[in-house]
Amino acid sequence: MREAGLRVGVDEFGNLIGSRPSELGSALLAGSHLDTVPQGGMFDGALGVVAAIECARVLHEGGRSLRHPFVAIAFAEEEGYTFGSGTLSSRSLLGEMPRDQFSELVDRSGRTYDEYLRARAHGLPQAHVPAQVRAYIELHAEQGPHLERMAKQVASVDQIVGSQRTVVTFEGRAAHAGTTPMDRRADALLGGAEFVLAVNEIATASNGRGVGTVGELHAYPGARNVIPGKTALSVEFRSQDDTWLTSARERADGAAGKIAGRRKLGVRVTPWTGSLVQPMDSGLQQAILAAMRLAGHDAVTLSSWAGHDAGILARYVPSGMIFVPSTGGISHAPEEHTPWPAVEAGTHVLLETILRLDATDGTGGTLPLAYAAR
Amino acid sequence: MREAGLRVGVDEFGNLIGSRPSELGSALLAGSHLDTVPQGGMFDGALGVVAAIECARVLHEGGRSLRHPFVAIAFAEEEGYTFGSGTLSSRSLLGEMPRDQFSELVDRSGRTYDEYLRARAHGLPQAHVPAQVRAYIELHAEQGPHLERMAKQVASVDQIVGSQRTVVTFEGRAAHAGTTPMDRRADALLGGAEFVLAVNEIATASNGRGVGTVGELHAYPGARNVIPGKTALSVEFRSQDDTWLTSARERADGAAGKIAGRRKLGVRVTPWTGSLVQPMDSGLQQAILAAMRLAGHDAVTLSSWAGHDAGILARYVPSGMIFVPSTGGISHAPEEHTPWPAVEAGTHVLLETILRLDATDGTGGTLPLAYAAR
Repeated sequence: MREAGLRVGVDEFGNLIGSRPSELGSALLAGSHLDTVPQGGMFDGALGVVAAIECARVLHEGGRSLRHPFVAIAFAEEEGYTFGSGTLSSRSLLGEMPRDQFSELVDRSGRTYDEYLRARAHGLPQAHVPAQVRAYIELHAEQGPHLERMAKQVASVDQIVGSQRTVVTFEGRAAHAGTTPMDRRADALLGGAEFVLAVNEIATASNGRGVGTVGELHAYPGARNVIPGKTALSVEFRSQDDTWLTSARERADGAAGKIAGRRKLGVRVTPWTGSLVQPMDSGLQQAILAAMRLAGHDAVTLSSWAGHDAGILARYVPSGMIFVPSTGGISHAPEEHTPWPAVEAGTHVLLETILRLDATDGTGGTLPLAYAAR
Repeated sequence: MREAGLRVGVDEFGNLIGSRPSELGSALLAGSHLDTVPQGGMFDGALGVVAAIECARVLHEGGRSLRHPFVAIAFAEEEGYTFGSGTLSSRSLLGEMPRDQFSELVDRSGRTYDEYLRARAHGLPQAHVPAQVRAYIELHAEQGPHLERMAKQVASVDQIVGSQRTVVTFEGRAAHAGTTPMDRRADALLGGAEFVLAVNEIATASNGRGVGTVGELHAYPGARNVIPGKTALSVEFRSQDDTWLTSARERADGAAGKIAGRRKLGVRVTPWTGSLVQPMDSGLQQAILAAMRLAGHDAVTLSSWAGHDAGILARYVPSGMIFVPSTGGISHAPEEHTPWPAVEAGTHVLLETILRLDATDGTGGTLPLAYAAR
């Protein structure tokens, strides 16, 4: 960031901010996130941050000034693995995660989100995201197979799909795996296994309207010679269609109850959380598509099946996303890759979009920043 | 042990040994194990150790001498949770676990069995299990529901059921849980879930001839927004019938292959390990039953569905077991309990059996002790 002429700092939510000041009050924001999932790849998130810095570098080395301030931003905790809560830093930044809940979020080592934030200064000066924002643009790997299937290098995103998630816990009775006859067991893992298959069935039956995943499953106490007395698992549904999401939730609730009843297990479904379908700003989509056409790309538009910080910022300021392909549709895995020509093409479209927006006086918006002190 | 007049020491396999020397070379051994499973109870193992010490205390305080040396023993690592290998200390003691494999067993912190043993001196003097053994007697909670159902306090054990275990790993492809369409997934947890149900079905269909359990299941990488690329699970079958065990293994192998084929997953079944059905010494069973009758108990005989150190020692020296009831049939759980009158009755039968054996000149056996230096 410093080599690209940006003034570097970090805010109290762990977001890394590189600023290029200018005359107009309304800033152009570009970036993505730097955190990742366990065993993830090197493109998800980091690519959009590097692309934003690359745009700043090209402007800096070319001696090109902008009318608007430009800010390259790297959000923290977008995957949200540390505290089990996605887009955590952008939601904290915008006051969507109330400060009095910071001490309720606890990581695997017992540290609260409060304590985590206090330890994140990185020795960098304090900085702030500007409140007046003309637009936020995020370049990101598609993380799905569509662009590669279409043999395209770049797409504009029309919406971020809605998602719903919960944790389901089956409770049985831990007992000795040798001495407990089959008809005297209350094996919580059997309930969990049936429910994993039920979630898959609900999503598969949607014929492409939605996806459903159990990504985490823990059987307790977890010894080969002990019948599991408790099984906890995560459930996540995503869809372009809020109605389908509601029905998937209801069917999962119903399946959990039915399985527990049949297997004489207790069951607890924690309240579902998530977001509705979030459209991207239409003016910004037009600017991205125009930048794509200028560079000789077809006007491809896709929906994002992954959540992004852009989905949070879009609630307050014009936000848009540029997708580049994921080889084999693979993401959240070490093999994650985007072909380098597509990286170059996407970054070029990002720069061209920034220049277009800078040349026009659009109406932006105000971010309700939740900084404690300014 | 010291208060009971025993000379206390520990051997190089972590076994705690309390000896009462006497004239005859052939020793009477009684005891059980001190280790436990995670979230286990306080009876499994410890009860048999305390009962053996109590017998020594009664003899000591009553000034009663025995013809045979008496040894109270507390085996280590019978549950085998630390290194994932049951009856580890008794098998090591008897050379069934070759010393060159000690560095291949690794616990959750990365420590090898070799390193673990070197750190286990406890500040106690070195001691050894005697090689010439007249009999080994282990008092233990039944860990199942039968004695309680029959409203009996004590039973003699006729055999320890055979067991077979393995680890099955399904391999798919980790990918993003939002962006990967349902028809492009290779979700390893779906294979694991189906297999959990298949193991249960194989055991349930046995109509009491066998039990089958998946006690451990791990989905990797284990994040709510990542499709599991790998699932590893433990499988364990137990039966009074070696033929059934063989067929259960074959059916589980078949199910794993079929599930993997249908779901386009890789699958690996590590070689099955375990033991055949192990009968207890018939002369020792008669001595225990005679001691029971003397104390007014019915001549109840049960099979043990759990493995025990007695099953290992029985391969070399006359071995027998005394069972006391488990309330609700529960074991390997904090609620594990044996009513105190039954504890007293069982310990009384143990003492009476020791006195009977001491009074007769039976043929014992020789333990092939694997001590490095004597």
